[in-house]
Amino acid sequence: MTSELCIRRKVCSYLFINFALGSRYVSKTATKSVSEFEYDAPSMKTAVPGPKSQELLRQLGEIQNVGAVHFFCNYEESRGNYLVDVDGNRMLDVYTQISSIPIGYNHPALMKVMTNPNNVSTFVNRPALGILPPENFPDKLIESLLSIAPSGMRRVQTMACGSCSNENAFKTMFIWYRNKERGYANPSEQEVDTCMINQSPGCPDLSILSFMGAFHGRTLGCLATTHSKAIHKLDIPSFDWPIAPFPKLQYPLEEFVRENAQEEARCLEEVEDLIVKWRQKGKPVAGIVIEPIQAEGGDNHASPDFFSKLRNIARKHGCAFHVDEVQTGGGTTGKFWGHEHWGLDDPADVVSFSKKLLTGGYYHRDELKPDKVRAGTAPAYPYRIFNTWMGDPSKNLFLSEVLNVIRRENLLEVVTRSGKALLQGLYTLQTQYPHILSRARGQGTFCAIDACNDATRDSIMIKARNKGLFMGSCGEKTIRFRPALVFKEYHVHQLLNILNDVLAEHK
Amino acid sequence: MTSELCIRRKVCSYLFINFALGSRYVSKTATKSVSEFEYDAPSMKTAVPGPKSQELLRQLGEIQNVGAVHFFCNYEESRGNYLVDVDGNRMLDVYTQISSIPIGYNHPALMKVMTNPNNVSTFVNRPALGILPPENFPDKLIESLLSIAPSGMRRVQTMACGSCSNENAFKTMFIWYRNKERGYANPSEQEVDTCMINQSPGCPDLSILSFMGAFHGRTLGCLATTHSKAIHKLDIPSFDWPIAPFPKLQYPLEEFVRENAQEEARCLEEVEDLIVKWRQKGKPVAGIVIEPIQAEGGDNHASPDFFSKLRNIARKHGCAFHVDEVQTGGGTTGKFWGHEHWGLDDPADVVSFSKKLLTGGYYHRDELKPDKVRAGTAPAYPYRIFNTWMGDPSKNLFLSEVLNVIRRENLLEVVTRSGKALLQGLYTLQTQYPHILSRARGQGTFCAIDACNDATRDSIMIKARNKGLFMGSCGEKTIRFRPALVFKEYHVHQLLNILNDVLAEHK
Repeated sequence: MTSELCIRRKVCSYLFINFALGSRYVSKTATKSVSEFEYDAPSMKTAVPGPKSQELLRQLGEIQNVGAVHFFCNYEESRGNYLVDVDGNRMLDVYTQISSIPIGYNHPALMKVMTNPNNVSTFVNRPALGILPPENFPDKLIESLLSIAPSGMRRVQTMACGSCSNENAFKTMFIWYRNKERGYANPSEQEVDTCMINQSPGCPDLSILSFMGAFHGRTLGCLATTHSKAIHKLDIPSFDWPIAPFPKLQYPLEEFVRENAQEEARCLEEVEDLIVKWRQKGKPVAGIVIEPIQAEGGDNHASPDFFSKLRNIARKHGCAFHVDEVQTGGGTTGKFWGHEHWGLDDPADVVSFSKKLLTGGYYHRDELKPDKVRAGTAPAYPYRIFNTWMGDPSKNLFLSEVLNVIRRENLLEVVTRSGKALLQGLYTLQTQYPHILSRARGQGTFCAIDACNDATRDSIMIKARNKGLFMGSCGEKTIRFRPALVFKEYHVHQLLNILNDVLAEHK
Repeated sequence: MTSELCIRRKVCSYLFINFALGSRYVSKTATKSVSEFEYDAPSMKTAVPGPKSQELLRQLGEIQNVGAVHFFCNYEESRGNYLVDVDGNRMLDVYTQISSIPIGYNHPALMKVMTNPNNVSTFVNRPALGILPPENFPDKLIESLLSIAPSGMRRVQTMACGSCSNENAFKTMFIWYRNKERGYANPSEQEVDTCMINQSPGCPDLSILSFMGAFHGRTLGCLATTHSKAIHKLDIPSFDWPIAPFPKLQYPLEEFVRENAQEEARCLEEVEDLIVKWRQKGKPVAGIVIEPIQAEGGDNHASPDFFSKLRNIARKHGCAFHVDEVQTGGGTTGKFWGHEHWGLDDPADVVSFSKKLLTGGYYHRDELKPDKVRAGTAPAYPYRIFNTWMGDPSKNLFLSEVLNVIRRENLLEVVTRSGKALLQGLYTLQTQYPHILSRARGQGTFCAIDACNDATRDSIMIKARNKGLFMGSCGEKTIRFRPALVFKEYHVHQLLNILNDVLAEHK
């Protein structure tokens, strides 16, 4: 039924002629023939979760916490932007496994990686990368992660997931900070002794400054810098670290330039106050961590000017500057990294990543080498940043191929084009339904819109899902869009058509 | 050259006749023909690291910290217990990627998993398991992780690595502890508000009791319970959590029963004192975490009686009891879990794992469900234990097959038999070289022996490596043996022969 609402023909020119029939987008033409492996449109057979999902939910509930499970998937049958569930429902997926599927489901290029016999050993023999890397490891890093290294960074450390990446990025900043303080000399006997029992000076009272609304992960170090939802943090011991306000901007940004600049100035002032205050408290700020766009916290944006000034504040106070690109990285904003929109040559000291990059990890400037020692002395301390696996080369294999596809198919341009169409469509919707929607915002396809309250947001999302559109939520009442990089303009039109139908019924 | 020292013939009966010629083991016969995919013996072409490894080390050093890298590997050419490096050296590997390769390199059964077209989608489409699990996820958990669940546990949560497993196990214990205190009621408004800014009561001053010498990982929460080496902890902020002494036993255990019992009693008394002291300090102990054998800390054993009493102390004081089986789990002690040697029906509240299980995760008793609520009320809090990936189903696929191989090839019996031979051989060596070696100890093939000092230990390890035997170290001066489960008695003999040659030259 829903699939009929989303009219898209297999067509021959890339020019889309969109007319609003009501708010119905009709994609007339496209140069590129539809990738054979993708479906045309959503197709729904049951409400979601359907009966098979419900039965599986019951089974899985016997084994683990399932409160967050939406439905069960048939990944074999999913293609491109379309996620198929176990009840045969095919949905346009604009949440993509919490923004972690870079080029859609079952992309033929990734299937080839799997079926290439030369790659079998990489999957079967997972090495302890920190002690016994495979022969091709430097080459693979060069062709994958280093080919997309942020400006000013030539060093990268892989990790298994986003939380581990941030935890180890924090450690790298703490080590750097204390190394500087010691003049890169050997630690004192007292430091060595006290660290073994969790006491200072060996385990110093250093802090990381984070922002209200931030999300940097849920392990104990990361969680001390996460402030998006209470349920993430409740009952877990934490650190007394400073938390600055993140700018609460008005949207569209270009219409509130003056007000937003004032709000950003207020937040920056608070950042400096907190750095001074925590230094006086004896818990100096070793690093500042921030997302280019706060995602889990509600898709909160700030201007390039804000980030540029914040980076200067970090430099001025001797704090490392850590940009967490776990959700913004990988092309979804129209540039490979969210921070590229700031136009800085020296955007950060540390940039962490995961999700769409398929492996976790972080880049850092040379200055932050954990084994850095005084000139003329040999590196005495390996194993400072270390764990058993230190990433997974099989994920690097997939990443290399994803980067090939991004380049070959100009996917950053696709994202920019689709993002514009999506944001424009959201503006139109909020104009049509001002009592329901507001604050449409986005960069690339990293877009969001607010509902009037959380119940309405949740209701819109469920109704849309039953019509074949699977979206994500964030913040208190925000819908977030996190499609894959292969999300084209005709997918945008499908999305907007379904959303419009839901809103029209909601009136 | 070295390979000639290690005499093993392809033979027809499983009975080994070992004679000490000097201390040379000669394996005469074996029922089982050698698995075709494995090599016969080590074969060395250069010193290790060889020239190719050294060149790659230089290249990788431009990209990341390489202080801990031993050499670069040719995983394609590695087979079973033999690790081949990029210079064509083939070593008997008894460290197995820090104890994380369960059934040897390129096991044919695992190669088949990779080449089965039905499995391709599982590798290519990594799901966000907490919201959109694949159709076969409950079944795969049942046939893999639940088929080896520790006594009393029916619930399991997968995670990406050992550190994340322990971090989330700690969180599960904290949540359980506070839920109990609140009588499973909703949190107060004050708790909700304060947790957002890292303050109590929302982020309560709870603690985890750990043991000196323990290793539970290196993310900030785990690191607060890790006390094996200063360099892991130096410069990283920590929590003021209690640290109890781990028994320092004398070996062989059966010769020092009375002395060891006294030492264990002393440690248990200290545990109870610390629990009381930290409660008085306002930082109650929510959980106790311990390894069945302290690995990284130096292969320190304790008796079943010690663990049984410790488990009772946890119960008595209302602390959760978390057994960290990241290194001891997966069959290496001769039983699937290290704690099975204690003979308890209710050995723990939480058991964490990773490494040989290929996926991280933890089991827990029903009582510790993070969404547990008062009877009659609906679970209100999903997402308490959550992250993007929550594990990786492609690792579960491999684990299922590893478990099939363990059962089919009776590998726990193999480990028990090889372990006995190995420990007996180590006893013989320390008798022959009492000025160099002491304190041989082990359970299954999870064996260790101490050198007289760290320099001697390191020298023995390097010399052995150059003769084709790759071992691991731990503690201050310990050599640790962590072979795969397919390590047979003739591999033990190769190991002992090489070690004997090194020691003979060392005299």
